[in-house]
Amino acid sequence: MTAKIPGPNARKIISRMRRYAYDSTFMYPLVIANGHDCTIEDLDGNRFLDFTSNIGACPLGYSHPDVLEVLAEYSTSGTHKIAGQDFYSKEHAEFVVELASILPRRFKVFLINSGAEAVENAIKIAYRRMGPLPGVSCHGAFHGRTLGALTFTSSKPVHKYNFPELPVIRIKFCTSDSDAEVDAVEPLLKENKVAFILTETVQGEGGYNVASKKFIGALRRSATKYGVPLILDEVQSGVGHTGRWWAFEHYGVEPDIMSAAKALQVGATAYRRELEPRDRSALSSTWGGGSRIDMAVGARTIRVIRRDRLLDNATRMGGILRKGLREFVGKKGVSDVRGLGLMIGLEFETRQRREKKIAELFRAGLLTLGAGQKALRIIPPLVITREEVEQGLEILSSVLSRN
Amino acid sequence: MTAKIPGPNARKIISRMRRYAYDSTFMYPLVIANGHDCTIEDLDGNRFLDFTSNIGACPLGYSHPDVLEVLAEYSTSGTHKIAGQDFYSKEHAEFVVELASILPRRFKVFLINSGAEAVENAIKIAYRRMGPLPGVSCHGAFHGRTLGALTFTSSKPVHKYNFPELPVIRIKFCTSDSDAEVDAVEPLLKENKVAFILTETVQGEGGYNVASKKFIGALRRSATKYGVPLILDEVQSGVGHTGRWWAFEHYGVEPDIMSAAKALQVGATAYRRELEPRDRSALSSTWGGGSRIDMAVGARTIRVIRRDRLLDNATRMGGILRKGLREFVGKKGVSDVRGLGLMIGLEFETRQRREKKIAELFRAGLLTLGAGQKALRIIPPLVITREEVEQGLEILSSVLSRN
Repeated sequence: MTAKIPGPNARKIISRMRRYAYDSTFMYPLVIANGHDCTIEDLDGNRFLDFTSNIGACPLGYSHPDVLEVLAEYSTSGTHKIAGQDFYSKEHAEFVVELASILPRRFKVFLINSGAEAVENAIKIAYRRMGPLPGVSCHGAFHGRTLGALTFTSSKPVHKYNFPELPVIRIKFCTSDSDAEVDAVEPLLKENKVAFILTETVQGEGGYNVASKKFIGALRRSATKYGVPLILDEVQSGVGHTGRWWAFEHYGVEPDIMSAAKALQVGATAYRRELEPRDRSALSSTWGGGSRIDMAVGARTIRVIRRDRLLDNATRMGGILRKGLREFVGKKGVSDVRGLGLMIGLEFETRQRREKKIAELFRAGLLTLGAGQKALRIIPPLVITREEVEQGLEILSSVLSRN
Repeated sequence: MTAKIPGPNARKIISRMRRYAYDSTFMYPLVIANGHDCTIEDLDGNRFLDFTSNIGACPLGYSHPDVLEVLAEYSTSGTHKIAGQDFYSKEHAEFVVELASILPRRFKVFLINSGAEAVENAIKIAYRRMGPLPGVSCHGAFHGRTLGALTFTSSKPVHKYNFPELPVIRIKFCTSDSDAEVDAVEPLLKENKVAFILTETVQGEGGYNVASKKFIGALRRSATKYGVPLILDEVQSGVGHTGRWWAFEHYGVEPDIMSAAKALQVGATAYRRELEPRDRSALSSTWGGGSRIDMAVGARTIRVIRRDRLLDNATRMGGILRKGLREFVGKKGVSDVRGLGLMIGLEFETRQRREKKIAELFRAGLLTLGAGQKALRIIPPLVITREEVEQGLEILSSVLSRN
């Protein structure tokens, strides 16, 4: 570690950024330069154990040999990025075949540039079928930052201050089977015509809140009864972090339409093929399905997760982590630990305490992020080892026990 | 050329795509495998002269030595794609410095994943300042496929059938200084509170329609007079294809906020720094500013365009192309040629005729695309040579003179 963080090289970059670019979410001054396994190295050679996986987007950690092999393969490509909905490519076809292998049966796929755009296209597919009716979404939800997806987001006021919205009905996101509103969607659908129900099963940005089984069951049952598409947003929870390919597998349900991105390396909307828009060009995008490198890395990521049994690893390592974290609950401002697999939220009593501990963990060499109002977000790469889990718990123990 | 197009390899990919993926805009069965200069090669070794530059997204053509150098450099990167608004990177800072060098003075930048998202963030910056008021946009406009950007798009009904919209007031896009509505925005702003005026100066997807100077002048004057941000969308026209860095430079005006993508390799929203949201995290995105390869290619693209005087090349080659194309006007169903630099629209009398000719050009080895209802879109890479222009004109001449 350099004497001061950020070190001299990082300071230059950060001051340039602040001069020319919007200084966005950045919670601490980390300038990423390289990484190996679950370790990220900054521009001054400082090394950090990574419990963020770049918000789930780096499931294989860093310098994974399979990823480096793909990058090397495309380093001589004369057409590495094309207009992927105007022209075909082998990588697009291979990626969607690989993705189909982990989707519900008979689902089809539309590729796009981000998680937000994956949600936009999910709701577009629903609107096309149902008309411009209100959409149902949950309090505390995060579905992305474009204005369609943002209408159905309500995790933080700063995301949408002063913005107009599409028609929306918000319901409570129930985390307990005994919640009085766990089945409130049934009477709502009886009385209102709606275009879709959109939810996460594990709220990501909203705080790693895990939905109750009864709640998701009620959404599925009511959606089917009233012929309303159920859209499950798997942008953060999908592709392995919960110990299953999709978080909804923990609930024994299937969506009608779903969104994915992050760990997948590209944005994707998947849907029961009966819901596919009949006209060509109803959905499109210049770069959607056009980054041949990202699609090749994405296809390889799915294969590696399967080959190396990383879902099992996520379940096992997540179990050890959650067990270790439970020790801190009730002490020094920590009020709860929750999550599925390697998607773990550690709740603090106050926001200030959470911010303080994230900064201290950073300086102690452990990367974490915030989620929701008061939670610490822990989502390490799927390749994390027992040693790395224990190393992380040690740092957490030392930092959390301080005042 | 293989006896049949698509050849056997391409046929396999296309049939797989149709089975697993939404078959989007694809106008002809081209499976891109590689390319050099202005030539694209398909999976069966067929070669095509490219007058599309992947809708402007490949300004340096294919296998450009500078681009290959960047790809080689990143082929060993352990962190090629990160969460770019949560963690900093050298490439992000270097890209925004390079971009600032071609922007209006004192503009700042927010990086994002696509042109649609660049527009979404442009209007979000305006809403934040002005409140959730109606936005003003033009008939025939295309600003992207996410529901915010799509509200202000009106080029084709298939893009938005059954979708809800945000508040919008549409005005005529005037292409002639003598149009009666060329100054209609002034009384409109006098009578209505609006959040922004959003327009292209050269409509892209809408048909390569070039705005009248008086029209853009009136928008700028009225926007200033009533304190309304003028947003210019440069997603397709920006970064060189019109022979200037930005199409608005042909009009002697500057926007308050602007959007770019495609040729830039990443999406970007740029704005007068006075308009920057004061809160952190008002704008954000996991991958925005996070694809280190795309940012490095983007920064290099700007440097190469400057170093190799490709703006001048676009002006010269565009002039030769337009002059050559004018020969066809009034013959065999061709009714007009228009454009700026290498962004050229060839208008047909009917849509059917346009579709037929695009397919024939493809089979004769020239790639073009449609734009608007009846136009052929010509937007070759900025590196196009005189020989390639003449080769293209020869193919066009042969195909357009047939019945």
